[in-house]
Amino acid sequence: MESSEGFVGEPADTREELLLATYEALCAHGYADLTVDRIAAAFPKSKSLIYHHYDGKDDLLLDFLDFALERFEATVPLDPPEDAPDAHLREVLDHVLASSLSAERREFAAAMVDLRAQAASDERFRAAFSRHDRFFRERFAAILRAGIDAGVYREVDPEATAATLVTLVNGAMTERVTTDDAPVEAIRAEVERFLEATLRRES
Amino acid sequence: MESSEGFVGEPADTREELLLATYEALCAHGYADLTVDRIAAAFPKSKSLIYHHYDGKDDLLLDFLDFALERFEATVPLDPPEDAPDAHLREVLDHVLASSLSAERREFAAAMVDLRAQAASDERFRAAFSRHDRFFRERFAAILRAGIDAGVYREVDPEATAATLVTLVNGAMTERVTTDDAPVEAIRAEVERFLEATLRRES
Repeated sequence: MESSEGFVGEPADTREELLLATYEALCAHGYADLTVDRIAAAFPKSKSLIYHHYDGKDDLLLDFLDFALERFEATVPLDPPEDAPDAHLREVLDHVLASSLSAERREFAAAMVDLRAQAASDERFRAAFSRHDRFFRERFAAILRAGIDAGVYREVDPEATAATLVTLVNGAMTERVTTDDAPVEAIRAEVERFLEATLRRES
Repeated sequence: MESSEGFVGEPADTREELLLATYEALCAHGYADLTVDRIAAAFPKSKSLIYHHYDGKDDLLLDFLDFALERFEATVPLDPPEDAPDAHLREVLDHVLASSLSAERREFAAAMVDLRAQAASDERFRAAFSRHDRFFRERFAAILRAGIDAGVYREVDPEATAATLVTLVNGAMTERVTTDDAPVEAIRAEVERFLEATLRRES
């Protein structure tokens, strides 16, 4: 669920320039050491524009979070092709549980893990990540429902299976950026074993 | 994998008093706003003792992390009873994927999620969490091997299945403290469905 492109591409306006500067400062310093001065240092225009657009660092970071999560979500195709839901599910899982990440995807994942941790103590961040997880559970559930409707999947509870897949993806993403030896390849293979044994009808 | 008791009980010495103060300051302020002054405010003795024991905040936090992870790990029984590995596996999973947490376990989980995020940018934290995840993978794998040896489990790859369980637990723990509606109960039920379909032999 991470973008494989740059974070904002070419910024379209001052807000996007500011969000890109926030991203660069966040990647360089981490949330704990992020200051408006450090964001301003990565911003090509006047620092005063930050306060013109935002009430302060928290306000800017919340807008950044919404923007980042929406970009993230846009990398997952919204509508599964009705004729090949299982191929679509494999494609999404291969992407989110890829055995290795590009430097760019890893950097983005690290920034998201860092921001997510703030949700433990900040209800506005928690609201954003709650919505984000719901979004992905709903995406996975839609693919599962399409497979059930097409007769290729058994009559599982799509919401429960989707929740498990999202939790695995969140766990793998966390382990990937916070440990040296996350066994993502083994997990991807076990997910396949799980789907084979409990979801797919014999063809 | 969270303690259901207090973090250190009655501190045994100055180090444990300091670690308890660190825990209280971490819970109250979060990693991003944690300072030596805030730790000192929760510490009943002189602030100068902090610098007597530690080189500074980072050094103290690394010792705190090792202590916290070891306490955490001590809550999981080390040796599965050879005659009932499956009952043991269920017991561990019921504990780590409990449908709700006490305020104390939730607070501890939030502190761990916060510290884990620092591992994205600090290799010393990453080494500690790498060891921690390996420890739990090895614990789960030992239970699985005991079940295979006892003939109640199929010949699965214990390391791969253990890795998947640990990733689910890490994902659920993260979602629990960073969202408002983590579907842990549904995930626990899906894990049961997975184990039923792929691990347990028919009795």
